[in-house]
Amino acid sequence: MGMIGGGPGSFIGPVHRLAAELDREIELVAGAFSSDAARSREAGVSYGIDKARAYPSLDAMFAAEAERDDAIDFVSIVSPNHHHLPAARAALVAGVPVMTDKPLTGDLDEAGELAALVAGAGLPFGVTYTYSGYPLVREARERVAGGELGTIRKVVVEYPQGWLAGEANGKQAEWRLDPARAGLGGCIGDIGVHAFHLAEFITGETVSEIFADLGSVVPGRVLDDDCSILMRFANGARGVLLASQIEVGELNGLRIRVYGDRAGLLWKQEEPNSLLVQHIDGRAELVRAGTAQLGPAAASRTRTPGGHPEGYLEAFANLYRDFAAQLRGESAPLLPGIEAGVRGMTFIATAVAASRGRAGWVPLAA
Amino acid sequence: MGMIGGGPGSFIGPVHRLAAELDREIELVAGAFSSDAARSREAGVSYGIDKARAYPSLDAMFAAEAERDDAIDFVSIVSPNHHHLPAARAALVAGVPVMTDKPLTGDLDEAGELAALVAGAGLPFGVTYTYSGYPLVREARERVAGGELGTIRKVVVEYPQGWLAGEANGKQAEWRLDPARAGLGGCIGDIGVHAFHLAEFITGETVSEIFADLGSVVPGRVLDDDCSILMRFANGARGVLLASQIEVGELNGLRIRVYGDRAGLLWKQEEPNSLLVQHIDGRAELVRAGTAQLGPAAASRTRTPGGHPEGYLEAFANLYRDFAAQLRGESAPLLPGIEAGVRGMTFIATAVAASRGRAGWVPLAA
Amino acid sequence: MGMIGGGPGSFIGPVHRLAAELDREIELVAGAFSSDAARSREAGVSYGIDKARAYPSLDAMFAAEAERDDAIDFVSIVSPNHHHLPAARAALVAGVPVMTDKPLTGDLDEAGELAALVAGAGLPFGVTYTYSGYPLVREARERVAGGELGTIRKVVVEYPQGWLAGEANGKQAEWRLDPARAGLGGCIGDIGVHAFHLAEFITGETVSEIFADLGSVVPGRVLDDDCSILMRFANGARGVLLASQIEVGELNGLRIRVYGDRAGLLWKQEEPNSLLVQHIDGRAELVRAGTAQLGPAAASRTRTPGGHPEGYLEAFANLYRDFAAQLRGESAPLLPGIEAGVRGMTFIATAVAASRGRAGWVPLAA
Amino acid sequence: MGMIGGGPGSFIGPVHRLAAELDREIELVAGAFSSDAARSREAGVSYGIDKARAYPSLDAMFAAEAERDDAIDFVSIVSPNHHHLPAARAALVAGVPVMTDKPLTGDLDEAGELAALVAGAGLPFGVTYTYSGYPLVREARERVAGGELGTIRKVVVEYPQGWLAGEANGKQAEWRLDPARAGLGGCIGDIGVHAFHLAEFITGETVSEIFADLGSVVPGRVLDDDCSILMRFANGARGVLLASQIEVGELNGLRIRVYGDRAGLLWKQEEPNSLLVQHIDGRAELVRAGTAQLGPAAASRTRTPGGHPEGYLEAFANLYRDFAAQLRGESAPLLPGIEAGVRGMTFIATAVAASRGRAGWVPLAA
Repeated sequence: MGMIGGGPGSFIGPVHRLAAELDREIELVAGAFSSDAARSREAGVSYGIDKARAYPSLDAMFAAEAERDDAIDFVSIVSPNHHHLPAARAALVAGVPVMTDKPLTGDLDEAGELAALVAGAGLPFGVTYTYSGYPLVREARERVAGGELGTIRKVVVEYPQGWLAGEANGKQAEWRLDPARAGLGGCIGDIGVHAFHLAEFITGETVSEIFADLGSVVPGRVLDDDCSILMRFANGARGVLLASQIEVGELNGLRIRVYGDRAGLLWKQEEPNSLLVQHIDGRAELVRAGTAQLGPAAASRTRTPGGHPEGYLEAFANLYRDFAAQLRGESAPLLPGIEAGVRGMTFIATAVAASRGRAGWVPLAA
Repeated sequence: MGMIGGGPGSFIGPVHRLAAELDREIELVAGAFSSDAARSREAGVSYGIDKARAYPSLDAMFAAEAERDDAIDFVSIVSPNHHHLPAARAALVAGVPVMTDKPLTGDLDEAGELAALVAGAGLPFGVTYTYSGYPLVREARERVAGGELGTIRKVVVEYPQGWLAGEANGKQAEWRLDPARAGLGGCIGDIGVHAFHLAEFITGETVSEIFADLGSVVPGRVLDDDCSILMRFANGARGVLLASQIEVGELNGLRIRVYGDRAGLLWKQEEPNSLLVQHIDGRAELVRAGTAQLGPAAASRTRTPGGHPEGYLEAFANLYRDFAAQLRGESAPLLPGIEAGVRGMTFIATAVAASRGRAGWVPLAA
Repeated sequence: MGMIGGGPGSFIGPVHRLAAELDREIELVAGAFSSDAARSREAGVSYGIDKARAYPSLDAMFAAEAERDDAIDFVSIVSPNHHHLPAARAALVAGVPVMTDKPLTGDLDEAGELAALVAGAGLPFGVTYTYSGYPLVREARERVAGGELGTIRKVVVEYPQGWLAGEANGKQAEWRLDPARAGLGGCIGDIGVHAFHLAEFITGETVSEIFADLGSVVPGRVLDDDCSILMRFANGARGVLLASQIEVGELNGLRIRVYGDRAGLLWKQEEPNSLLVQHIDGRAELVRAGTAQLGPAAASRTRTPGGHPEGYLEAFANLYRDFAAQLRGESAPLLPGIEAGVRGMTFIATAVAASRGRAGWVPLAA
Repeated sequence: MGMIGGGPGSFIGPVHRLAAELDREIELVAGAFSSDAARSREAGVSYGIDKARAYPSLDAMFAAEAERDDAIDFVSIVSPNHHHLPAARAALVAGVPVMTDKPLTGDLDEAGELAALVAGAGLPFGVTYTYSGYPLVREARERVAGGELGTIRKVVVEYPQGWLAGEANGKQAEWRLDPARAGLGGCIGDIGVHAFHLAEFITGETVSEIFADLGSVVPGRVLDDDCSILMRFANGARGVLLASQIEVGELNGLRIRVYGDRAGLLWKQEEPNSLLVQHIDGRAELVRAGTAQLGPAAASRTRTPGGHPEGYLEAFANLYRDFAAQLRGESAPLLPGIEAGVRGMTFIATAVAASRGRAGWVPLAA
């Protein structure tokens, strides 16, 4: 694996490294960690890779790696959003499969361009909607698909954070608040899109219409930092998606509730190893990770026995296990691909436009 | 105390009785429990009151009680919504103070009429927005008022229930689904209005604009059973109010989160004896009922030491303690009065109209 | 109902009053609240009873009440432990049924004497082991009795409190720390005996042997304030009972876990409206109060629909409903009676003696 | 790193591999995974190491590695308990540092022998008491050491599991129930010793006396599967240690409560990212991982921002980070070493002997 981005000060670069390597199917061996050659080298040292493979640019990396017998098998793109397209383009042109962080690109046009490139290249392509890697999220999806909830009627997904409630500072905050690097969306692109993917991932239903109300609560912000979105699914189900980065004290409180006409379920990211399923007859089942109650989707992505908690890194690593399987030519249908990436960009672009234009309910293109 | 409504099969009648009598400041001694004389007598027996004081009608009650030395000091109205106005009118005309269940009336015109009557009568008048009686709700209000949260920026209040997810039956469901008795609102009138009151009660801020999306999810329903409402407060804060009665498995999951620029708080009705306050510096304080951490508003409405849980009936009883204080001529400013009642009706009427008309954002009259 | 004890400053007197009257089957009408006539009158006023029925002594109360047409039907004894026997004796001699707070008496000899008096009198006699009144405790008992857990193998009951961790002061602390009034046990008599009763109540099994290690942690205490007790049940099951009043920050954290060879259960007093039942196949069921999942024992002692929390006062009131049923000649087998009272005293006396004598494992007389 | 044990079917071998490699400071490159050469090779393939370095025996490994330029820097011993001593001896004799799973050895004599070997070798030596690697456990330790709790008075540590409640089968169960491989202790050696270490680790106090009651609940067992142990610390504090593997439905429910005269704390392994600290004035603080509330011990062993849960593998990896630091010559005082290993064996041996002999309270040798 080669990494694009993830230079000194990056949060998500080390997370990708850890996640990719966790199951020893993948090893980070190269990177274009920064457009500054010295910083890229510095990052290479911190990741412990061969100095020669910490490249000063994308071009340098793809050129040099192409000459090696032990060349990288794929790249992970962990740079800011506006950089995803050029990075992915360079990789695909070089014939290198791509795993990219979300959101897919800086805007929707870029997403369309990237989709065309992926279609043309015919190479594995994954998007790290991290939360779909949690075993109990996959359990939830499997139970919905199996009919346990009945017809889906209502989805409520919430993603509260508070770390941008104050005067933001530091590298993480800086680029996320800058339209030139973050793209169209602030909060909606950073976390709202995770919530959106989760809603469609678990339910298997498609959102067909949205009402978006995005706000910039902290004075001086250009991008949104607080989002309230109402949804309709194609099957008629109603939905609510809330995401915020100004809810003081909230850490990473993603939670989703899905209700059918026979049962409902609740999953919380901060307590990810259980799933509550409540039935119309009053029965409430606490489904716990690592027990015999799990179906194959969850069981195959669990590393420890029940009661030995797995967390965020393990969920992230599950996406890399899926991707490694795809590289080996195996099927790994739960890994979000280019379609899910474009879908997220459609959501972001539609919501941002609708909110700015006070357009009311608008269709979400399929 | 005399009761109006609360006949055989009533849920809320016995709750009012229990709550009113809990602190031994009030005793149920009379009632017009049903417009059917036999049923009214039957209810009187079940409540254990003097047979002679189980009246067949409002008129009979007020006439007979007026003759007694030990006449009732006030009435509690617990009949369906459409009946609140005539019941309250009869009481006020008879010079009898009124405590009424929510929503105030069947529609907004009736609310206006009742407000005029109350103003003219100059008698104590209370509305049982039950959840404002919980000690930790009052603690939350006091902390917001004291500035602990800073400027309020965001409110999320959710009220999920699932008991009307199926084919509803039974007396409780029947009248709530019938516009002739329930009035304008289904879910919004039954529980949404509680959530609305709670949001304004705790924050001390006023909602100035709403976007309402009410739905009738279960086929065949005329009234709403699922509500999603976005809000703006007069101070610029953003809000979300969700209420539903079709979320299978949910019991009475009212929860509210309020965020300022310095701290946020979370309270859940189903675990009512603690309040989580999270500060911008990362400190998270678990405020527990019955401890020395509570301010006077909460402490004065707590009956047991910490760790001896109080619940719904005790919260309800706190409203009656407030009302009893008002009857004695004391101040009890936390008891919702006619203004809060009218405010709730304004909310219901505005939301129902805006949702039906797909009117987008609409002002909420002060 | 007449009350014995519960004078000014009492915590438990008002609790008994509230609990007894909650369901309107019982009314407090008289009392010998204090041996000081003025204080007894003062308490009578605070309880709102007829002044003439706030008596200066037991004798005065029983004599005067015997003359009345509307005489008390029973007494509740809420005075300190050493006073339970004389109070109960006076009542039984006067032909008046008795409900008494726990522990039954000051020591085991008194308990034996009282048991003989009760047997001779043939009158209803109840002991308020409060926690056995919680609906979900009764549900737990019913499920064990129905075989859902299989053969009981292990019981862990813990009762942490922290209110006596500091230099205790106030009326509540004072008498509990004084052997002359509290009797043999400090913490073990105040709360350990609750835990002991709960263990036998839920399991239906009998403790046959104990190892007791009681300590006085806060300097200067004569009675125990921290108890660790290991147990064997007659069926071979193993048990642990922990009670402490010096665990800083703990409020009233009674919790019990019971394990059979097929399933286990967990109930916590501070979150009393749910019960977790975990099966050997990995299924975990969250049994929630007020739902259709409850058996008749719990359902018949629940006042509100699911999600409307009931608490300590409602549990306490369930014991009074049982007692009222017994007064009417009905069966109410779940109310602890004289046997359970004596059993608790046997436990206290045995544990205190064994601990003082460092006697190791000792039998607990049946 | 070379691994000893961890052959096909092992649970803990892959866990050590994951944990050791997580932070990319360590790589598994060799192993004597099984005494069966074919199985050792099979394991080597599954771990993805060079085939030539999957050795058929300890001797083969140490001999071959000594010849390599890129020889292993240390070994991890993950074989059953009785094998720890010979494995560690071989390593130390070969001049190779050792990280070993707990308990240290099969019995106390072996522990003494190993301690002498370690002292003689002067090489880094670590013991994986996993739970001491959790950031919030280290936070707890730091707060106790800093005086926040005051003088420690009481410790309650519980470790419930249920996976051996039935007829056990499978490799994991088999050797743990066999005295020839597990050594003296069953449950006490498998999990009780974790609880014991945690109690001394967090409090910094030394247990000086114990009362042990070990049982074999499931018929046919030779070793204990249920342990209740009372403790006294040298400073006079009282303690309780409960461990069981027959508590049906429990997964890995380690939890510890520590009380001083100023505050108490609670930590639960299954929800490891928060720590509750409750003060004598009623304040309750929820300390959350990844926030600014953490001291350096916890902060330096946290990989993700608050709200992105870390779990068991990350805690385990923290011990390997400590060990890697020691290999580099840095100080890492929180890693349990040979003393903590011997201490655990002393605890096991003393408890087993005392329980078998019904010896009552016995001293725990320093």
